[in-house]
Amino acid sequence: MSAERLIYLPLGGAGEIGMNCYVYGYGKPGKERLIVVDMGVAFPDMDGSPGVDLILPDISWLIENRNRIDAVIVTHAHEDHVGAVGHTFEQLGARIYARPFTANIARHKLAEYGIGPDSVKTCSPWPATTQMGPFSVGFLPISHSIPESSGLVIDTPAGRVIHTGDFKLDETPLVGEPWDPALWAEVSKQGVKALVVDSTNVFSRHAGRSEATVGPAVTELVADAPNMVVATTFASNVARVKTLAEAGDRAGRSICLMGRAMRRMIEASIETGVLDSFPKVVSSEDAQGIPRENLMLIVTGSQGERRAASAQLARGKFHGIELKEGDTFLFSSKTIPGNEKGVIRIINQLSEQGVDVVDDSMGDYHVSGHANRPDLETLQDVVDPQIVVPMHGEHRHLREHTKLSQAKGRQGILSVNGMMIDLTGNEPKVAEYIETGRTYLDGSVQIGALDGIVRDRIRMALNGHVLVTVILDEDDDPLGEPWCEIKGLTETGKSNAPLVDVLEEDLAQFLGRAGAKTLTDDDKLEDGLRRIVRQACLNEIGKKPEVTVVVSRLA
Amino acid sequence: MSAERLIYLPLGGAGEIGMNCYVYGYGKPGKERLIVVDMGVAFPDMDGSPGVDLILPDISWLIENRNRIDAVIVTHAHEDHVGAVGHTFEQLGARIYARPFTANIARHKLAEYGIGPDSVKTCSPWPATTQMGPFSVGFLPISHSIPESSGLVIDTPAGRVIHTGDFKLDETPLVGEPWDPALWAEVSKQGVKALVVDSTNVFSRHAGRSEATVGPAVTELVADAPNMVVATTFASNVARVKTLAEAGDRAGRSICLMGRAMRRMIEASIETGVLDSFPKVVSSEDAQGIPRENLMLIVTGSQGERRAASAQLARGKFHGIELKEGDTFLFSSKTIPGNEKGVIRIINQLSEQGVDVVDDSMGDYHVSGHANRPDLETLQDVVDPQIVVPMHGEHRHLREHTKLSQAKGRQGILSVNGMMIDLTGNEPKVAEYIETGRTYLDGSVQIGALDGIVRDRIRMALNGHVLVTVILDEDDDPLGEPWCEIKGLTETGKSNAPLVDVLEEDLAQFLGRAGAKTLTDDDKLEDGLRRIVRQACLNEIGKKPEVTVVVSRLA
Repeated sequence: MSAERLIYLPLGGAGEIGMNCYVYGYGKPGKERLIVVDMGVAFPDMDGSPGVDLILPDISWLIENRNRIDAVIVTHAHEDHVGAVGHTFEQLGARIYARPFTANIARHKLAEYGIGPDSVKTCSPWPATTQMGPFSVGFLPISHSIPESSGLVIDTPAGRVIHTGDFKLDETPLVGEPWDPALWAEVSKQGVKALVVDSTNVFSRHAGRSEATVGPAVTELVADAPNMVVATTFASNVARVKTLAEAGDRAGRSICLMGRAMRRMIEASIETGVLDSFPKVVSSEDAQGIPRENLMLIVTGSQGERRAASAQLARGKFHGIELKEGDTFLFSSKTIPGNEKGVIRIINQLSEQGVDVVDDSMGDYHVSGHANRPDLETLQDVVDPQIVVPMHGEHRHLREHTKLSQAKGRQGILSVNGMMIDLTGNEPKVAEYIETGRTYLDGSVQIGALDGIVRDRIRMALNGHVLVTVILDEDDDPLGEPWCEIKGLTETGKSNAPLVDVLEEDLAQFLGRAGAKTLTDDDKLEDGLRRIVRQACLNEIGKKPEVTVVVSRLA
Repeated sequence: MSAERLIYLPLGGAGEIGMNCYVYGYGKPGKERLIVVDMGVAFPDMDGSPGVDLILPDISWLIENRNRIDAVIVTHAHEDHVGAVGHTFEQLGARIYARPFTANIARHKLAEYGIGPDSVKTCSPWPATTQMGPFSVGFLPISHSIPESSGLVIDTPAGRVIHTGDFKLDETPLVGEPWDPALWAEVSKQGVKALVVDSTNVFSRHAGRSEATVGPAVTELVADAPNMVVATTFASNVARVKTLAEAGDRAGRSICLMGRAMRRMIEASIETGVLDSFPKVVSSEDAQGIPRENLMLIVTGSQGERRAASAQLARGKFHGIELKEGDTFLFSSKTIPGNEKGVIRIINQLSEQGVDVVDDSMGDYHVSGHANRPDLETLQDVVDPQIVVPMHGEHRHLREHTKLSQAKGRQGILSVNGMMIDLTGNEPKVAEYIETGRTYLDGSVQIGALDGIVRDRIRMALNGHVLVTVILDEDDDPLGEPWCEIKGLTETGKSNAPLVDVLEEDLAQFLGRAGAKTLTDDDKLEDGLRRIVRQACLNEIGKKPEVTVVVSRLA
């Protein structure tokens, strides 16, 4: 019988940015006990996933092996790490482990599914550890753009693994623990088998800036603003929200938080004690009575989300507050690739209202939450791992990070979603390929990304949809004329006659010519009708639509 | 009767980047003779215009006044300036005027509609002028990212207008005429009433770089590349294509152009003499026999377009050529906002093949074709116009450019699509608002952006589509059971029964309960059936689909 082994298996987040989900296992091959690190979501878009509510990792493999799972650990409370805990809890049946702030957020997500708070166990930071099957796991504080982000110290019979989670090297993060190189060196000094590490900013060549560098520029901007100031940032960036609020407070402005996510994050920060002070805030009702030059709104929607506060304010009145000429709108954020159009739409709407827009291209109004290339090198120097496993990145990030590690004389291995790595020996090796992918939360149902449902939606959006109804009598003869309805297509084509009339005429001719062989065979009949519609549409409007044919037979 | 006036009316390009179309008029109000400057397209996307082929300006106002149009002038051959000439020529019936290279491109577009070459009149540059109704128009050479871009000197009884077209201040553009401040000063010295001016880069704070600055970095990169080099850029940037080809030639590589648009542009450049030399190129068949370290491909698709050469090479073999580990892929371009995801998809596919990707963040591999903020100030200083009218920009660009002009002590007016400006007097004033918008070329048909067709497509993509068929007999009684088909929705919902079964059961119950008042009234019946489907879907799958009901009555 083969020996026990230590495996690493990414199911989300390796080969993409989003829906992080990483599995570690220890035991005999195929019988390893498992822990899952993070259970995040990604966000849909019209291009690839229209109508979808959320994108989840495909965890079929975990569900098949649910009896082997000892824990689901959440490193921090960003949606791409914690967002799927509610949607997958019942499928996995494993307890969730997190530090207090993250646990608070996770419990709210589980509550939406009626799952009680005991399903999440709150953990203390390192040197506290929790035994989870063959693993001893400790939460190692590190700085990021959300409070209490943690690396994980994962001790296994095959050695120590450090999983960074998302991080930056920030010695003055304002809220949450700073990067503590001495602590990380201490944890690493007896040897680290593998460093599994965030790759997001591997292409950023300069050392990252501290969260503390944002305050001065924001403070000056807010102090100098002649009228109302609105600032937007990521709701979960509690340090930033605090910096913005303090800048307003210092300028003698009342602070109003708008957007549910932002209020939720500040509440959770206060409930769990990660935020010890925050300027007094006023409600939006009270804000309406305050002179606008004494008011500052801090709002959600920095990515241009249509329903968030920023977009609503840009469109007009929101909770009784309206922007006016001469107001200042600050994006204390960066635009995530893919969100440009939404953000630009808002900026143009603000421009139409005469609002002055300020963003991070105009001053030090934002810093990233991820370690840049020199910071990644620093971390490797501190931890000095035997193997580097880049995670949390698209393929290009993972590849670049692997090359960086190899250039530093270390073993680096490029592992993408579904690629199970055996970390036991001196050299990492690919153990197995697991089928994985994406699951869509669509309304209240989970569907597979490749099962054709979303493909059909995209086709209807691109091509329009024609419905054909034909009734056949007891003798399989057409009863009345065929009937067409169109959706998403022009009503009139080249011949200037209504498109449905042209289609119905062509269909009637086809039925008139069709023999018993066609009329008695549903498939043949439907194929024929479909072909007629597509050809007629191509002639009339230059498009081949999707066609649904309903043949009703009077029995 | 009122006096004659000089008007300016943007119908596209003012309040957006794309589909440029500007109108000038002179004469008595409502009877002005008109010239149209540029007739461009914009490109559709899944978010707002799924299935659409091209976006055109809504030129209904021009069509209504077609007997008043004396000319359509095209400043340069970029798609957002010339792309709609073929699609609109018959509607307007006006002759097209352009310089030779642009005319060459325009004639190809007209030929697709069977329109002969005489419809385009080829013009010589300034000091040559052409009389067009009350206007005398001259093409004033200026540098841009395509050969022969021209400003227009438009002389009217109310004074001289200079319309810049797209431009940059480049004294060494490599192909096409350089920026010639003496020429522009000469043209302006007798006084310029209005400068109508490109605003694209008003937010770029540093002076623009010359096209000539790209060569050295590209030459070094290509010389050092160990294996095959692929470079992509905008096909119409003939100077860039030449720079890339010369870099390859200098490194002893054979050059292969891939992508129809790129070969077309180089052909047109040679046919019209704007390109006097270009390295020898090989066909893709011949390229297959050349050792890869001696080969350089120059390809279309820098914006991630799925069908262009870049995307095809990233996906696998294209025209017999395949990328390999260690090849170099250069984006000698910038990504236009909105195209990020497509470009990143290609970069990741290249990464999977082990190809090293280089872009303009890593060196001087690209320069913009538009004047930056300091260059816009320089142009104003040279031309010294009475009025500045920013064009070619989103609202934010136009507003910023207006503010910039006012800060320089000039009159600036912010005019967006549909806002007709009277330029006759000492101060520009809004004369009228014209209804305008966007027209979609959809297959072979033009449809209005707001007529609901595309909205229906978007709704089907977001919500899925349910079709309900009900047959009623001569007595208005249901004949058989109602029938459902679903498209773009999951087959099974919460109750684990097939969704169509659940829907059909609910519909049958509804029909069973429905009285004669409902059964005899098509609208009532359809509304009722639709409501049942939406409610049942909400319960089963948490979505409210689009519903089409077909009621067939046996007469």
